[in-house]
Amino acid sequence: MSRRGDDSISRPDTSSGSTSRERSGRDGILANPTATRVARIAGLARRQARSKHRRFLVEGPQGVREAVRWAPERVLDLYMTEAAASRHPEIWAEAKAAGLYRHLTTAEVMAAMSADAQGVLAVAAMGESNGADTLTGALEGTRLVAVLTGAQDPGNAGTIIRAADAAGADAVILLRGSVEATSPKVVRSTAGSLFHLPVITGVGLEEAVKALRAAGLTILVADSRGETDLFEAEASVACGGLLSAPSAWLLGNEAHGFAPEVLNRADAVISIPILGRAESLNVATAAALCLYASARAQRA
Amino acid sequence: MSRRGDDSISRPDTSSGSTSRERSGRDGILANPTATRVARIAGLARRQARSKHRRFLVEGPQGVREAVRWAPERVLDLYMTEAAASRHPEIWAEAKAAGLYRHLTTAEVMAAMSADAQGVLAVAAMGESNGADTLTGALEGTRLVAVLTGAQDPGNAGTIIRAADAAGADAVILLRGSVEATSPKVVRSTAGSLFHLPVITGVGLEEAVKALRAAGLTILVADSRGETDLFEAEASVACGGLLSAPSAWLLGNEAHGFAPEVLNRADAVISIPILGRAESLNVATAAALCLYASARAQRA
Repeated sequence: MSRRGDDSISRPDTSSGSTSRERSGRDGILANPTATRVARIAGLARRQARSKHRRFLVEGPQGVREAVRWAPERVLDLYMTEAAASRHPEIWAEAKAAGLYRHLTTAEVMAAMSADAQGVLAVAAMGESNGADTLTGALEGTRLVAVLTGAQDPGNAGTIIRAADAAGADAVILLRGSVEATSPKVVRSTAGSLFHLPVITGVGLEEAVKALRAAGLTILVADSRGETDLFEAEASVACGGLLSAPSAWLLGNEAHGFAPEVLNRADAVISIPILGRAESLNVATAAALCLYASARAQRA
Repeated sequence: MSRRGDDSISRPDTSSGSTSRERSGRDGILANPTATRVARIAGLARRQARSKHRRFLVEGPQGVREAVRWAPERVLDLYMTEAAASRHPEIWAEAKAAGLYRHLTTAEVMAAMSADAQGVLAVAAMGESNGADTLTGALEGTRLVAVLTGAQDPGNAGTIIRAADAAGADAVILLRGSVEATSPKVVRSTAGSLFHLPVITGVGLEEAVKALRAAGLTILVADSRGETDLFEAEASVACGGLLSAPSAWLLGNEAHGFAPEVLNRADAVISIPILGRAESLNVATAAALCLYASARAQRA
């Protein structure tokens, strides 16, 4: 039996009803792919199980490394194959230093838990239920915020969170109706950025706009019907002033533009120039261009 | 029996050995999901079948619309469900005007051909086998070219082709070792841009660099080890001059940076500033930022 921070690598899973042999296998390595614990972890790929248990999967060395480094308080358990532990000793060492529960597994057990872990898997706790209160606190003093208003594609949502992190954004808001932030593909696509900045969920457009305004943020909407193009906004002094102000970017979804009531509430609606024959940009591409334009203007 | 350009909607598929009833179904609608033609089309999801038959699938209304509009000579057959034909009458009409073979299908037949077609599917001819000759011709007079040096993820590759199109690039080169340009997910992710600009495949790095230099293009490499950051490159007059010159961007893959021999051959190695805690950007995000920086500099 291990305790957080000591040297042993496993702990009994009292809820699984498994035998000692199932629990630890040879040399303390989790070796039984049919153990209850393994099935329960694999089950976190399903939304229903995540909601019920308030935990989610972090798959792959990059995501797990960042979770262990930047949000160890959210990491409930770390699982690594022996091969992965040799390849990524720093993850194991940092998890140990942070006092996290660590478990070695066979490749077979790892495969039964996740097809996308590349030998490195963490189970993390979902944050508190978010909402208006969290939002107001999280927006205090922010200068750049990305707001996903209805992103449906998990890869795009994760890629936007990653780009927002890279552009130095202070927070990301996923409005109700967007894809779930803890779904495996979103988490993978963030490449660890999910643990780098606050990602706020569970709020609607109305309360988000109210909180953004209260925080003194200029509200920019990226939409092809925008009266200002992003190049002009960067080039002109007046608009450059707009982009260099503390701002929140409202970013649409893949299929539809914004409803007129959203456009009407923006301080500026800005379009990204399309110079070729493309009809539009991928939503994650558009988000990155907008966020980096603000980052550049704010740095200048 | 139909001929290109007339009003009928089907043609006998002489190679399938199917009966007349299988071919046309009720009212000339393809209605038999087990017909040989249907299986053969579905088979184009596999690389081997695409190579053998030199044809590929274009799935969904956006991609098919752009293929019909911009590259009708490559469209061998158009398939639409009745519902999709009502939703997108312009596709059907443009295909008719272009003299393309058009076929109505039942929803069942469409589902058997593709899970991602949303009722609209085309079979398109792969281009001639590309190579150095095609390359030299395609690069003549270009001002902005994207070079994918080893993109493995089909979604990223397609998204880069789409972003290159939007940024006004004149051509995209997928070097040998990149994902195949006609795989279904690449084609879908381009959202039609595959038919908007030349996408050159089948060349290696050496011949590509040689041809790019011969075409007078400055070779820029996007790499986190770059001595110049993209913001500085845009801001400074000297580097702004660099970005406004006709250029080719060498874009890496998801997992690895460039080998030193690639970096050494670049006119400039440029890094994208990372302002937050992210380790790197998604390759398609990075590509869009680089290509748009050049587009902006060239326009200014």
